[in-house]
Amino acid sequence: MTKKIRFALLAIALMNIGLFVALYAALAADAQWGYDGDQGPAYWGALSPEFSLCDDGSAQSPIDIDEASAVNLVELEFNYRQTVNNIVNNGHTIQVDIAAGSHIVYNGIRYDLLQFHFHSPSEHTIGGEAAPMEIHFVHRDPNSGALAVVGVMLTESEADNEAYAPVFEAMPAAAGEAQALPAPLALDALLPQTRAYYTYNGSLTTPPCSEIARWLLLDSPVELSAGQIAAFKSIYDGNARPVQPLGKRDLLRKRR
Amino acid sequence: MTKKIRFALLAIALMNIGLFVALYAALAADAQWGYDGDQGPAYWGALSPEFSLCDDGSAQSPIDIDEASAVNLVELEFNYRQTVNNIVNNGHTIQVDIAAGSHIVYNGIRYDLLQFHFHSPSEHTIGGEAAPMEIHFVHRDPNSGALAVVGVMLTESEADNEAYAPVFEAMPAAAGEAQALPAPLALDALLPQTRAYYTYNGSLTTPPCSEIARWLLLDSPVELSAGQIAAFKSIYDGNARPVQPLGKRDLLRKRR
Repeated sequence: MTKKIRFALLAIALMNIGLFVALYAALAADAQWGYDGDQGPAYWGALSPEFSLCDDGSAQSPIDIDEASAVNLVELEFNYRQTVNNIVNNGHTIQVDIAAGSHIVYNGIRYDLLQFHFHSPSEHTIGGEAAPMEIHFVHRDPNSGALAVVGVMLTESEADNEAYAPVFEAMPAAAGEAQALPAPLALDALLPQTRAYYTYNGSLTTPPCSEIARWLLLDSPVELSAGQIAAFKSIYDGNARPVQPLGKRDLLRKRR
Repeated sequence: MTKKIRFALLAIALMNIGLFVALYAALAADAQWGYDGDQGPAYWGALSPEFSLCDDGSAQSPIDIDEASAVNLVELEFNYRQTVNNIVNNGHTIQVDIAAGSHIVYNGIRYDLLQFHFHSPSEHTIGGEAAPMEIHFVHRDPNSGALAVVGVMLTESEADNEAYAPVFEAMPAAAGEAQALPAPLALDALLPQTRAYYTYNGSLTTPPCSEIARWLLLDSPVELSAGQIAAFKSIYDGNARPVQPLGKRDLLRKRR
């Protein structure tokens, strides 16, 4: 073949590809769909590249309205007791393991308080701003295994927070170290007095990042002294995962 | 090689694979992670197969608390006028295109009413049960392009629904057919009087299934006569997509 013939054949081949692409795009835009047989809902995603969300989406309609799983924005109910607890440095944070008997009730489900722990700076941000620290009260529904995590922002003030004093005075500096707290903790006093909240469906903020957590972020912060904040930051500073996209999840606000 | 030697080599190879798998699983379970450098949050998903959600999840924490996008469960506000409208058989349903000027306000955002249309049976189900029909009032936020779709269940009663009479009397039987409705519609009378609702983030229920719809499903149904329901079903019966998984989305309920 001469160069000219080869060039002509190549041009024809490219034109054919171009025609095919154009035809395919036209068909895709006008793809016929229906409710029966091979044009029915189970095939929509395959009928056209433009319909791929019908198969691959994560926020599709319609849905079943399941009364049992519907969320009512209700008061968050705390039933926290005074308990004797252990404090541990687990290599990633300082954590207080809670003796059995304290729980919250959210949307009709009881979640038992297991532990609370600290992050510095805060992991959640408000309007892009982090607080100096954030505390996570981790609860579990014993029936489903689902978690409900109450997040409280910590801000700096003049005076020591007396309710937290036994915790900040006993923080083990070395990873793996644990000890009993010297005095029982009045757990309810660890929370702010007003308990309006934001809530959304999320995950653990540490590996394996399991998506099993109902987050309940209290509107009001708890105040700690600069000394108390420094006590934690001398052990862990910078144990906060960056914020993640909300995506199609709802962030709900329960006002006071 | 004798058969025995070949067998021994194969056995050793299999044992090595077994050891490797066990070792890998042990390493994965104990994968070290932290907040800095190549063990930091950006690498968590790659550190272990068990951490894959840290990269691939769709409902991760923490998030930024963005006041502007937070959902308050407020009264749904309808501002529907009396307008002259067109009715069309679009090949998939009967649709009434609405003259400009009617809108709803949801969570502080105004969505303009564009059209309403019918499905038979209902697309959403309540506790697994479908209604005979469902009507979708489609609204759009002119700024963002986001849709808000108000869904109303239709149930059967003795009497004709007078508010809907002009619509059911003028349904074009052939795909592609359109006509002006003979009389103006009092749009507000098309809705039930009590307007408690369920809401969730979802999609179009027809291709391309775009995930751009805030669904607002009214608690109370509208009643139609058997004759009115039959008038639609004689044209379209079975234009309902099956229900899709809720996933990590919240289904919220606003009580009366």
